[in-house]
Amino acid sequence: MPGVATRKNQERTRDNAMEQPPADGCLFLEHGASSVQDYAKERYGVLPLIQSQEKPDRMLIRIKDLTGEKADEVVWVRGRIHTSRAKGKQCFLVLRQQQFNIQALVAVGDHASKQMVKFAANISKESIVDIEGVVRKVPHKIEGCTQQDVELHIQRIYVISLAEPRLPLQLDDAIRPEVEGEEEGRATVNQDTRLDNRVIDLRTSTSQAIFRLQSGVCQLFRETLIHKGFVEIQTPKIISAASEGGANVFTVSYFKSSAYLAQSPQLYKQMCICADFDKVFCIGPVFRAEDSNTHRHLTEFVGLDIEMAFNYHYHEVVEEIADTMVQIFKGLQERFQTEIQTVNKQFPCEPFKFLEPTLRLEYQEAVAMLREAGVEMGDEEDLSTPSEKLLGRLVKEKYDTDFYILDKYPLAVRPFYTMPDPANAKTSNSYDMFMRGEEILSGAQRIHDPQLLTERALHHGIDLEKIKAYIDSFRFGAPPHAGGGIGLERVTMLYLGLGNIRQTSMFPRDPKRLTP
Amino acid sequence: MPGVATRKNQERTRDNAMEQPPADGCLFLEHGASSVQDYAKERYGVLPLIQSQEKPDRMLIRIKDLTGEKADEVVWVRGRIHTSRAKGKQCFLVLRQQQFNIQALVAVGDHASKQMVKFAANISKESIVDIEGVVRKVPHKIEGCTQQDVELHIQRIYVISLAEPRLPLQLDDAIRPEVEGEEEGRATVNQDTRLDNRVIDLRTSTSQAIFRLQSGVCQLFRETLIHKGFVEIQTPKIISAASEGGANVFTVSYFKSSAYLAQSPQLYKQMCICADFDKVFCIGPVFRAEDSNTHRHLTEFVGLDIEMAFNYHYHEVVEEIADTMVQIFKGLQERFQTEIQTVNKQFPCEPFKFLEPTLRLEYQEAVAMLREAGVEMGDEEDLSTPSEKLLGRLVKEKYDTDFYILDKYPLAVRPFYTMPDPANAKTSNSYDMFMRGEEILSGAQRIHDPQLLTERALHHGIDLEKIKAYIDSFRFGAPPHAGGGIGLERVTMLYLGLGNIRQTSMFPRDPKRLTP
Repeated sequence: MPGVATRKNQERTRDNAMEQPPADGCLFLEHGASSVQDYAKERYGVLPLIQSQEKPDRMLIRIKDLTGEKADEVVWVRGRIHTSRAKGKQCFLVLRQQQFNIQALVAVGDHASKQMVKFAANISKESIVDIEGVVRKVPHKIEGCTQQDVELHIQRIYVISLAEPRLPLQLDDAIRPEVEGEEEGRATVNQDTRLDNRVIDLRTSTSQAIFRLQSGVCQLFRETLIHKGFVEIQTPKIISAASEGGANVFTVSYFKSSAYLAQSPQLYKQMCICADFDKVFCIGPVFRAEDSNTHRHLTEFVGLDIEMAFNYHYHEVVEEIADTMVQIFKGLQERFQTEIQTVNKQFPCEPFKFLEPTLRLEYQEAVAMLREAGVEMGDEEDLSTPSEKLLGRLVKEKYDTDFYILDKYPLAVRPFYTMPDPANAKTSNSYDMFMRGEEILSGAQRIHDPQLLTERALHHGIDLEKIKAYIDSFRFGAPPHAGGGIGLERVTMLYLGLGNIRQTSMFPRDPKRLTP
Repeated sequence: MPGVATRKNQERTRDNAMEQPPADGCLFLEHGASSVQDYAKERYGVLPLIQSQEKPDRMLIRIKDLTGEKADEVVWVRGRIHTSRAKGKQCFLVLRQQQFNIQALVAVGDHASKQMVKFAANISKESIVDIEGVVRKVPHKIEGCTQQDVELHIQRIYVISLAEPRLPLQLDDAIRPEVEGEEEGRATVNQDTRLDNRVIDLRTSTSQAIFRLQSGVCQLFRETLIHKGFVEIQTPKIISAASEGGANVFTVSYFKSSAYLAQSPQLYKQMCICADFDKVFCIGPVFRAEDSNTHRHLTEFVGLDIEMAFNYHYHEVVEEIADTMVQIFKGLQERFQTEIQTVNKQFPCEPFKFLEPTLRLEYQEAVAMLREAGVEMGDEEDLSTPSEKLLGRLVKEKYDTDFYILDKYPLAVRPFYTMPDPANAKTSNSYDMFMRGEEILSGAQRIHDPQLLTERALHHGIDLEKIKAYIDSFRFGAPPHAGGGIGLERVTMLYLGLGNIRQTSMFPRDPKRLTP
């Protein structure tokens, strides 16, 4: 009988999860026979597991909608117990729903008995409860809550899902700014504890804001490109040959043979261009078997990829990509101001600055700026990470922008498929884009001529057999084209001025982390 | 010197790619010295490889914009040579751009010499050319082209990218309806030839339409869900443990250890629900190491995944998903009519029918319908593929819909995490959705109680150690929730009434195919 099973579950849930198993039967809604004097016994308890037994005609209101306008209304709310504090004959709860919270109060009186207050006070933090209460205006703003003008006077409280009493991390610790924590000697939560308990860490207002904003980055990226006439494509992640030479690639066992995980959708984006899709984009995982344990490397990240045929000059594509980034920055400013401010509370940061049109510097200009600042480097040398950071600061000082394009990289430091610059044998039609001094996009005009591609591959010492399919793609008429790949997690991290890419990957993967 | 390199490339290109190397120098724009009598020699030729040498101030017009309104204007167009037919002193070309094409004509006269006409006639099919021409109205509609009211009178023609002369497949063969081809003894192109030469196969109007519509499915899916308040999430594809028991999973070597490719984002979607994201969706690759070589199985496909917390009953979620599908169907009808008709020309099919609200049948009703139609099956038996197809026909006859929900599957045929039906020990709160008699979505209310989950896992003989992280996700308060996963390629295939999933996957992966 399902009823019996349900009750059994309930009892075990209570034993495991309540901090102090109550002495009387007050936990049970329907069968609290032992407590005869409890006039409120039907007003609280642990409800049976919701198995879709019924479809009650009851509206649950969102906490964010509980404002002064609802004063004196009786409402039903479902939320988590964020904190609870018993004080004599009453208990104050903070009820949380995503990034919103409200103060709730249960006090001994007509609606609540002593047992009911005790029950409420004993519900473990993070448990989910259904509350019926009256919305009451408060004389002084409630500073700790997002709903500052009202509180909820509880008339009924039922547990929907009990949390285990000992949380692996405290949400209040998890949103404390690190400096503040250190100064006051209060706890903060380290990265590994957060990631090991990601289900809880993601509940903080900071995490909620980061990932809602990240969802926005994807949305703005697509909105902008679809508006510009791009087509979304889906490219395979299991590939038969390592496209970029074979280093840093994960191997997959594929039935009786083996295969690889794609390090980028580039070949497929280019095939779509050769197949007349003209302008394409894709969003998907990208895999790099790089043993890098830095603040900005992941072994699996999300690529926002663009490829586009152009008419005469690859700057047509550079401008489209830069404009797409600008539309993302603007959209975030307009639509995600609350999220930005929420993250800033824990991780203070200057607002992200950008110019319109986007600043484009040539590589040699950057080299000159760096040399003037004391960096020694050759003309054809790639930028080191510290040089990139320094350059970011120099550009910010000189041009007041956190976003810029570095164009015309030395040919020698770019992949074989990069189009050489027709005007200078040492440079190439390639570019990176930077946010706050860190690279977020790498791109180039690609060689669309099979013969030049063959020459360049040979020059790089690449085995032609391994890239035959790639080169063959261009044999049946290929338009000139360029593109680039953007790292989603880096965009989110750098836009918000965060210090570690693991903060902007929900379930990050690095050489040492594969869980959760 | 870049100039020299470019010319070298040009010459080689000519030797390899022109069907008959012309006797004179007419292929060369800038150095056709041998042909002194050619008064048009600057009006045609093979241009140097576009390496972004310049940014000319020249507008290229889109073929789809060449209508009667442009009559008598001189325009520049870039397109592919779709067909060419020389006839005495003139040559007719069909110039193609994606799904649009126009007739173009070059004739000996003021603007074109004999050599120029010969040059145009010799350009290999699929080459990309830039044409300057006058738009002229035609007295009779041009039946073979999308631009039927005008043709282009060529004044200049330059090759931008030469195609090799022997194409592995002909585009006209590739869009011929199979029945027509058979009747007339004309060629059609088989699946493997298409897939082996996907860059060319994707250029057909049918392929262009299929994948533009598929891009639309993703767009409509997201638009609808973002409007409903869902958040987009990104879930990892490399996972440390096989989530659903370990069968049919691909193994990845991960540094010194090994890992798996995710068979579904389900655990991560559910973790996001436990982390208060409330309503989430994701679009991404899903991997199944199943050795199935059928018309509807791929080893890598794109999952459109949804997970959502609900208040009281999982039908709240079923309704949201069904409505999302309906919005997709409506959006396709409204925005992709041209694409639907294009595909129908090659693959005729009845328009897709659906009801509002969506028809929902209980599993036992379906069993009764099948039994009435002569199928023998037990109450707790799963539907075979032929039964599903038959059921689709029966439902279509009775209710006139190609889309419906089958609810309350037997508990025995569903995964361990499926919530049992509280009213019937043999059934479960689970559902599939069907399009034209084939499953496109599988979903359920999930068990959100760690103890019931443990019981059900044990009942299924699952090693608890392997799913510990999964079960632990529910220990700190979990809302009731349900969800489902939709196969993108199946939706596209079945909406368009196509017969093979390889037609709706750009670069399909199956046990026998890993390329291109």
